[in-house]
Amino acid sequence: MTDDLNLPGLEDVRAAAGRLAGRVHRTPVLTCAAVDGLAGATVFFKCENFQKTGAFKFRGATNAVRLLADSVEAVATHSSGNHGAALAAAARERGVAAHIVMPENAAAVKRAAVEHYGGRVVACEPTLAARELVLERVVAETGAVFVPPFNHRHIIAGQGTAALELLEEVEDLDATVAPVGGGGLVSGMGIVAAGLRPGMEVFAAEPEQADDAARSFRSGKIEPANSNTIADGLLTSLGPLTFAAIRAHVSDVVTVSEAEIVAALRVTWERMKIVIEPSSAVAVAAVLKDARFKGRRVGVIVSGGNVDLDQLARLLGE
Amino acid sequence: MTDDLNLPGLEDVRAAAGRLAGRVHRTPVLTCAAVDGLAGATVFFKCENFQKTGAFKFRGATNAVRLLADSVEAVATHSSGNHGAALAAAARERGVAAHIVMPENAAAVKRAAVEHYGGRVVACEPTLAARELVLERVVAETGAVFVPPFNHRHIIAGQGTAALELLEEVEDLDATVAPVGGGGLVSGMGIVAAGLRPGMEVFAAEPEQADDAARSFRSGKIEPANSNTIADGLLTSLGPLTFAAIRAHVSDVVTVSEAEIVAALRVTWERMKIVIEPSSAVAVAAVLKDARFKGRRVGVIVSGGNVDLDQLARLLGE
Repeated sequence: MTDDLNLPGLEDVRAAAGRLAGRVHRTPVLTCAAVDGLAGATVFFKCENFQKTGAFKFRGATNAVRLLADSVEAVATHSSGNHGAALAAAARERGVAAHIVMPENAAAVKRAAVEHYGGRVVACEPTLAARELVLERVVAETGAVFVPPFNHRHIIAGQGTAALELLEEVEDLDATVAPVGGGGLVSGMGIVAAGLRPGMEVFAAEPEQADDAARSFRSGKIEPANSNTIADGLLTSLGPLTFAAIRAHVSDVVTVSEAEIVAALRVTWERMKIVIEPSSAVAVAAVLKDARFKGRRVGVIVSGGNVDLDQLARLLGE
Repeated sequence: MTDDLNLPGLEDVRAAAGRLAGRVHRTPVLTCAAVDGLAGATVFFKCENFQKTGAFKFRGATNAVRLLADSVEAVATHSSGNHGAALAAAARERGVAAHIVMPENAAAVKRAAVEHYGGRVVACEPTLAARELVLERVVAETGAVFVPPFNHRHIIAGQGTAALELLEEVEDLDATVAPVGGGGLVSGMGIVAAGLRPGMEVFAAEPEQADDAARSFRSGKIEPANSNTIADGLLTSLGPLTFAAIRAHVSDVVTVSEAEIVAALRVTWERMKIVIEPSSAVAVAAVLKDARFKGRRVGVIVSGGNVDLDQLARLLGE
């Protein structure tokens, strides 16, 4: 799979939706009067925590794997978690092998998920350099095709199908919000929004303590990631494609504190009764915090629900 | 509200459903391939954890409150939690006051919920005798009408609407399961099942450590409650009406250990991504455990989602 420098368009997202039909869940959109009261807004939650493999990542991975040549027998990637499980599951559905390079300190629940879906976990040291080196070795040894986690048009088009479903189901949204890590989800959402609802605002949400997307947005160049947040799905920096999509389609990147993330996690669990991971709580926290959402109809993409309950217990105990 | 010794019938549940339309949520029915795999069955979860006030109890309370005479200005009850919040919310919707007698050791999240819905909490010692004494005093002082938590035909008819919706939505269930505390939910379910699907089996699920319904079912008389389980919604003994309904319509009472309850809680949270309370996990545990469900289509009523996250953190730490 070579890097294609062109971004996908709305037509590519629609084509992905056709490819994904019957293979991914059309997840529900939930509302909650209590959350609306706290936010002072009408909030629609697109629940990708109910997606297969527990995260939106299954959409992009499935789109990319379905578009592989018939001759391909294996795929590989590096992932701190959700993309790895998604790729393993998508590969199994297609009948090819999956080799997933994971940092040795990845959450236990995410490592177990990869293995549950039939993926082979290859542990590496928790640095980007180690990940890339080990991935290169795995590709050389197995002939697997590298499926990147976000910076690829097929991945971005696949992730965009979540926003496409949301905008089809809920009319007249004033704004949408999604968490930004590598930027695949927000890029897909921006592309869909620009095509379908040009007047609607698109926001990315990010932890203050991993604010590389916010800094990149302001400086105009991709800034390196800092890496100290409970939202462990958002530790990645942007790629050239996702940065281009974000510059083109995103109004602003809202940042939230660790305390705001934990508070949003608690509100969503206790009031909505759905299990979301800290990365998703970042988007909820942005809606609860930022005055620009007040009085408006806001769509939030709840990116995933893969949280380690033991880790949660520790978080709440702090 | 006087005790009526007649059980409601299917027509009373249908009338309640009409009364509740637009006032209670028609909650979703969810499925999960991972849970099906573990259970060896096809399981349909009727998600009353998404109900207003976070539990099925809002159905019965709303039905009872809507049937009060116009002259009534206040209601009262004793409750360890969910019925209290439900009655407070139903009373507010009708525009009458609610006085809720709660044991002083009730979960913080349940006490906060009663107050959130505008109810007045009256604390008492954590014994049935103290509850009844304090309730009597509150009724004498305020002129409030006592709305009992389960042993009343209007309450049972209201709770039955959850099963009615489930059976309308999912055809050809072989069995249904719900947790049993005071028995309002199971009674309503049994009445609906007997009327609509006489061939379907109805099971109650109960903690081994609070197995008074199982003992009553076997002995033929109402046995006193024992009270040592994490499923704090199921500490109550049956009433004459609910015991009669259970004897008439329930195939068996399945009991589960505390470890099985925690395991079911974990599976539901981690795989289905929904927040359920320990009392609901009792029914999930029964399906995972009992061989009579294998290979069958089983409906589970997820009774509620009001769990204190700090309490959960402690549970998981043990």
